[in-house]
Amino acid sequence: MPPVTPLRFVTFEGGEGAGKSTQIRLLAEALRQAGELVEVTREPGGTKGAEEIRALLVEGAAGRWQAETEALLHFAARAEHLAHVIRPALAAGKWVLCDRFADSTLAYQGYGQGLDLDWLWTLRRRIVGPTEPGLTFMMDLPVEKGLARAETEQRYERMGVDFHRRLADGFRQLAAADPTRCRIIDAARAREVIAADIAGLIRDRFGVSL
Amino acid sequence: MPPVTPLRFVTFEGGEGAGKSTQIRLLAEALRQAGELVEVTREPGGTKGAEEIRALLVEGAAGRWQAETEALLHFAARAEHLAHVIRPALAAGKWVLCDRFADSTLAYQGYGQGLDLDWLWTLRRRIVGPTEPGLTFMMDLPVEKGLARAETEQRYERMGVDFHRRLADGFRQLAAADPTRCRIIDAARAREVIAADIAGLIRDRFGVSL
Repeated sequence: MPPVTPLRFVTFEGGEGAGKSTQIRLLAEALRQAGELVEVTREPGGTKGAEEIRALLVEGAAGRWQAETEALLHFAARAEHLAHVIRPALAAGKWVLCDRFADSTLAYQGYGQGLDLDWLWTLRRRIVGPTEPGLTFMMDLPVEKGLARAETEQRYERMGVDFHRRLADGFRQLAAADPTRCRIIDAARAREVIAADIAGLIRDRFGVSL
Repeated sequence: MPPVTPLRFVTFEGGEGAGKSTQIRLLAEALRQAGELVEVTREPGGTKGAEEIRALLVEGAAGRWQAETEALLHFAARAEHLAHVIRPALAAGKWVLCDRFADSTLAYQGYGQGLDLDWLWTLRRRIVGPTEPGLTFMMDLPVEKGLARAETEQRYERMGVDFHRRLADGFRQLAAADPTRCRIIDAARAREVIAADIAGLIRDRFGVSL
């Protein structure tokens, strides 16, 4: 059962170069101007230990880990992030804006790398439990455009266009399966237009005036 | 269903200072003298990636990770170890002797740290699958004696005597639950006596002459 009041935990998902960090920054500014307390964080990472696990995940060859291993490492980092950052911030009345969360593991290791989705959902229910985001923006962009925009040259950028197509399709399927929580955002538009769209969706979902 | 023919995968479990590595060395020598091919390995670790995960686990403060996180990290390292070392060695006709394996995660994170055993068994069934050891020696030693013998001063040695009592009890319960696979070894005896005991149990289980 989803909570009656959605958690003020907002996640941004999508492929590389879709403008997630820019939109998180703009939303954080808008919320702070409205007098709200905001914690901005990211995955994998967000705590000292989780950032050490992140280093294992983002560095090295594309085929460095099995998908199975990678999923466990992501959920290990996530368990730390939830316990030490996300849940305490929510309990303190802050908004939590997070660059990637559990949908990324479903998309990358499940839809992208072929690990079975049932197992990934078993891990997700165990580790995330009742701390599912109140709202998730799926930043949607044509794959070629995203890859051209991506600034870094890390493991996933080297995985080929077909992988990134499966990824984009995975995010769309995750969004379709949970329309209460997820909103697909057309990320090909101007950033101010996207920011206004996101602010409106935040108002609708949480009843805050931005 | 256990396999009709037990895998020539032999694990050594137990608390700190119980003489696991000495007995592995002695058994490996005996098997090699009998003309067998032997792979000696350890957990956490055993592959380059798994050793990097090991470094996260064995260093740092005792309370560095939640038990939940620690279990995921152990099974992540184990997935790599199984795929890149254990399964290929068994497929090549080698014996695999491993210093610690999945029972340690059950004992340390389950019986020792209180993580629920059902979840740990879910992870174990998923990651280990049909590659359960054919024989497991539970090296049993009074807790104070083991701690006094332990050479290194790593995370678990700092966790207190009560923790190590729960651990020893956990290993005994795991052994009692699977008497086909597990043998409790009185590790307080002279090492030659223990080695002869182990060689006899290897003969009985696998039908090799040592």
